[in-house]
Amino acid sequence: VGKPVFNSDRYYDQPPTGVAMGLAWTQLGGATLYIESVASSSGKKSGGLITTGKMGEVMKESTDLALTFSKNYLKKVQPESEFFDSSSIHMHIPEGATPKDGPSAGITMVTSLLSLALNKKVRNDLAMTGEITLTGKVLPIGGVREKTVAASRSGIKLIILPESNRKDWEELPAHVRKGIKVQFADYYDDVFEIAFKNSADQAGTESP
Amino acid sequence: VGKPVFNSDRYYDQPPTGVAMGLAWTQLGGATLYIESVASSSGKKSGGLITTGKMGEVMKESTDLALTFSKNYLKKVQPESEFFDSSSIHMHIPEGATPKDGPSAGITMVTSLLSLALNKKVRNDLAMTGEITLTGKVLPIGGVREKTVAASRSGIKLIILPESNRKDWEELPAHVRKGIKVQFADYYDDVFEIAFKNSADQAGTESP
Amino acid sequence: VGKPVFNSDRYYDQPPTGVAMGLAWTQLGGATLYIESVASSSGKKSGGLITTGKMGEVMKESTDLALTFSKNYLKKVQPESEFFDSSSIHMHIPEGATPKDGPSAGITMVTSLLSLALNKKVRNDLAMTGEITLTGKVLPIGGVREKTVAASRSGIKLIILPESNRKDWEELPAHVRKGIKVQFADYYDDVFEIAFKNSADQAGTESP
Repeated sequence: VGKPVFNSDRYYDQPPTGVAMGLAWTQLGGATLYIESVASSSGKKSGGLITTGKMGEVMKESTDLALTFSKNYLKKVQPESEFFDSSSIHMHIPEGATPKDGPSAGITMVTSLLSLALNKKVRNDLAMTGEITLTGKVLPIGGVREKTVAASRSGIKLIILPESNRKDWEELPAHVRKGIKVQFADYYDDVFEIAFKNSADQAGTESP
Repeated sequence: VGKPVFNSDRYYDQPPTGVAMGLAWTQLGGATLYIESVASSSGKKSGGLITTGKMGEVMKESTDLALTFSKNYLKKVQPESEFFDSSSIHMHIPEGATPKDGPSAGITMVTSLLSLALNKKVRNDLAMTGEITLTGKVLPIGGVREKTVAASRSGIKLIILPESNRKDWEELPAHVRKGIKVQFADYYDDVFEIAFKNSADQAGTESP
Repeated sequence: VGKPVFNSDRYYDQPPTGVAMGLAWTQLGGATLYIESVASSSGKKSGGLITTGKMGEVMKESTDLALTFSKNYLKKVQPESEFFDSSSIHMHIPEGATPKDGPSAGITMVTSLLSLALNKKVRNDLAMTGEITLTGKVLPIGGVREKTVAASRSGIKLIILPESNRKDWEELPAHVRKGIKVQFADYYDDVFEIAFKNSADQAGTESP
C-alpha cells in the first residue's frame, strides 16, 4: 500500500498520560499517528488551546470541538475536577513537517485530552479513528482498509471504529483483519470504556 | 438527485437538548444536517460563541445573528433566565470536512440555541429551513424541492418552510410532497410554537 | 431594470423599532433594503457594535460612523438617555448571502440606531439614501433613477435624497417619479424631522 507518510509507527511502548494513538488516511496509504496533549501552564486564565503539528483548517476545528466536548465530559466523569478551569492546553501531532487534516482524529483528540485531565494512561495496544460531534456522537470515517493495515504494521492489537463503519470492516478480507480486534463506538462513552480499561480485561471482537 | 453530500441523515432518534435538524441545499442535491449547541463553560464571562464545522463567511454571520436573536427571544419567553449571561456557547455542524455556507440555517440555529437555553428537546420528526433577521422575520430560501426530497429520505414527517416559499411548495409534484407535512413560518414565533410542542398534538398541512 | 438582487421588497407593513428602509444601487438595478438594529445585551460594558449581512469594508466603516454620530445626536435630542452607555448594538442587513457595500446607507443606519435608542418607529412609507459625515452633513449618492424605480416597486410613497442630488431628481422622466414624493436633506436634522413624524402630518414634494 505504498510508503507510509508517517514514520512514527508506535514509538511509545506505553504512551504517557495525554497521548493517544489515532489512525490516519493519506494519499500514500494509512498511518498511525500520536496525538499529544500537555498542560502548558496553570494559572488564573483557563481554557486556552495551542495547537501544533501542521494541522489543516478542519483538523484545527476538531481540536476546538474536542476541547469543548472533553470539558463537558470531564464534568460527568469527574465532576470535582478543576483541571480545564486552571490549565491551558497544548495539543501536538508529531512529525511537524507532515501536513495533516480531516475530522477523523476527533475521538483520539478527546481521548488524549481526557487522559491528561484524568491523569490516566490510555491502554498501549489501542488505536482509534472517528469523527466526533459536540454531543459525543461518533461519525463514520474513510479508509477503513488502509487504517487497518497501518494498525497491523504498527503492532496494534485493538482498534476502535465508528459503529457506522461496521459494514466496511466486515467487508475487509480476512488477511487484512488478521491479528486485529475491533470495537465499534456509537457514542464517545463507548470509546471511553475501552481506552481507559486495563488491556488485560478488555476483549474485542476477534478476527477470524 | 445524486449522491447526498452529507451522510448524517438522522443519526439521532431523538436529538438531545441543543440539537435541531436543518435542511441544506448543495450542488449535489438536498441534505439534512444537524446544528448542535452546547454550553462550553460557565463563569463570569458571558456571551462568547465558538463555531466549528467548516462554515463559510455568511454562515458564520448567521451564527452571530442567531445568538443575538436568541438572547432577546429568551428574555421574552423566560425573562428570569440568566443562561446566556453565564454561558459561553459552542455551535457545531457535524461532518467537519464538508464545507457549508449560506444564511438558510438561521431558524435552525436559533432553535438549537433556544433548545439549549430552555433545556427543552426539539420534536424529533421535524426539520426546518429559513433565513432569519434580527427582528425574527423569516426570509425565503432556495432549493425547496431538493430539501423536501432530503427530508423524505431521512424519515422526517414535518418540515418548516418560510411563508414566502409557500408557492414553491404548492408547485411541487405530489410524489415529492408525499408523506411530508409542512408548516409555514412568517416570524420566528411560528417556528417556536412548532418546534417545542409535543409531536403528538401537532398537525401540519397534510400532503395529498 | 433587470431582476432585483434583493427579494426583500418591503416585508414589514410597519417596520418595528430599530428598522429603517434604505435604497441600494447594484449591478442588477436598484433595490430597497432594511437596516435592522437591536440591543444585543445590556450590562456594564457599553458601545460594542456587531455587524452582519455581508457588508464590505466601506459599509462597515459606515456603521462605525453611524454609531458615533447617533451617540452624539442622541445627546442633543434626548440628553437624559443612557441608551448607548448601557447597550451593545447588533446591526444587520437582511439577505445575508448578498454582498453589500458603499457609504450611501449612512443616513439609514443612523435612523435605524436612533429609532432603537428613542424607541420610536420610523414612518412606514419611507425609504432613504445618503452618505453621512461625522457632523451630520448628507453627501450625494449615485443611482437616483434606479433607486426611485425600486422604491416605487416596493410601494414606497416618500423618499429622502441628499440635497446635492436635487438636480438628478429633477432630470428624471415624469413616469419614473410618478407616485413618489421626495424630500431633500442637507443635514441629518432634515432626515430626523421626516423619519420620526407621523406620516399623516408629513407632506413631501408631490411629483407631477
